[in-house]
Amino acid sequence: MPKMLVPLAEGFEEIEAITIIDVCRRGNIDVTVAGVTGMTIKGGQGIEVAADCLIDSVDINSYDMITLPGGLAGTMVLSESKNVQSILKQMKEQGKYIGAICAAPLALHTADVLNEEFTCYPSIENQIRLDGYHQEQSTVIDDKVMTSQGVGTAIDFALKIVWQLQGESSFKALKENILA
Amino acid sequence: MPKMLVPLAEGFEEIEAITIIDVCRRGNIDVTVAGVTGMTIKGGQGIEVAADCLIDSVDINSYDMITLPGGLAGTMVLSESKNVQSILKQMKEQGKYIGAICAAPLALHTADVLNEEFTCYPSIENQIRLDGYHQEQSTVIDDKVMTSQGVGTAIDFALKIVWQLQGESSFKALKENILA
Repeated sequence: MPKMLVPLAEGFEEIEAITIIDVCRRGNIDVTVAGVTGMTIKGGQGIEVAADCLIDSVDINSYDMITLPGGLAGTMVLSESKNVQSILKQMKEQGKYIGAICAAPLALHTADVLNEEFTCYPSIENQIRLDGYHQEQSTVIDDKVMTSQGVGTAIDFALKIVWQLQGESSFKALKENILA
Repeated sequence: MPKMLVPLAEGFEEIEAITIIDVCRRGNIDVTVAGVTGMTIKGGQGIEVAADCLIDSVDINSYDMITLPGGLAGTMVLSESKNVQSILKQMKEQGKYIGAICAAPLALHTADVLNEEFTCYPSIENQIRLDGYHQEQSTVIDDKVMTSQGVGTAIDFALKIVWQLQGESSFKALKENILA
């Protein structure tokens, strides 16, 4: 079963995080929710979610993918966390999958792990770069780096992670099952 | 500010619950997350969410709406909870708004508060009734009772709650903001 790490930092966007975790678990991906700011993390809309472990205790060698939910406040923490930034660089070096949605592609940019083609929440590209930015695509896949725009594209993003890690038939069955 | 109650019971569907809470809070609805099975509630995909209070401590007279997330296990608890069933009947008698998504329209049916026209997760209608069931509509609004189909229709459902309680312009601005 492929393993995915989802780091949560105070101020994360709840729909994006929960959609990624829930849809990928339904797609038989072993998802670990890792707390960056504690074992209980409050999202941007005030919803508190429990982590499975602290990010410090994670052995990243066993993971196939890391995916960052958005939320501007949460993204700032992910961009400033030495641990998260170091994990992103290691995952990139090891040729693992990397994903980010909404504001979070900025945290990939900070770690210098974003590939050429990407998308993000409109206006965040101004803090990344205009070259390679795709406003017209919900989710952009450039080799092993996947990016998406925001709350309204979270299901599409999560389903495409399942497609990447589990293949076409898992993707199609799950898409139908969740009425997406 | 309109007030909405969202009861969470063990086994609730996480994307549906979080989407309703998050989108409605963004739409300036005062949402209370009420734990039915404790102050920390685990969803169907293993994600633990903290409640704002226990359902027993809620004064329902101050609420404008109650909305139930789906998830079959959670719905069974909501259907069997005397307290939740009593709250649903009182909200109906007081002419308040009532919403349910996925399997949860079954809990409305059990409380006898469902109106004639409704939708739900495909196949759940067999446990409710075929008359008035709309498979082709993501979200059905019949007077003050709103129902929706599941994970893939949760954003549509939540936005339509904002439309009902806050009006067209709030709905439109929020829809654009979340890229839905």
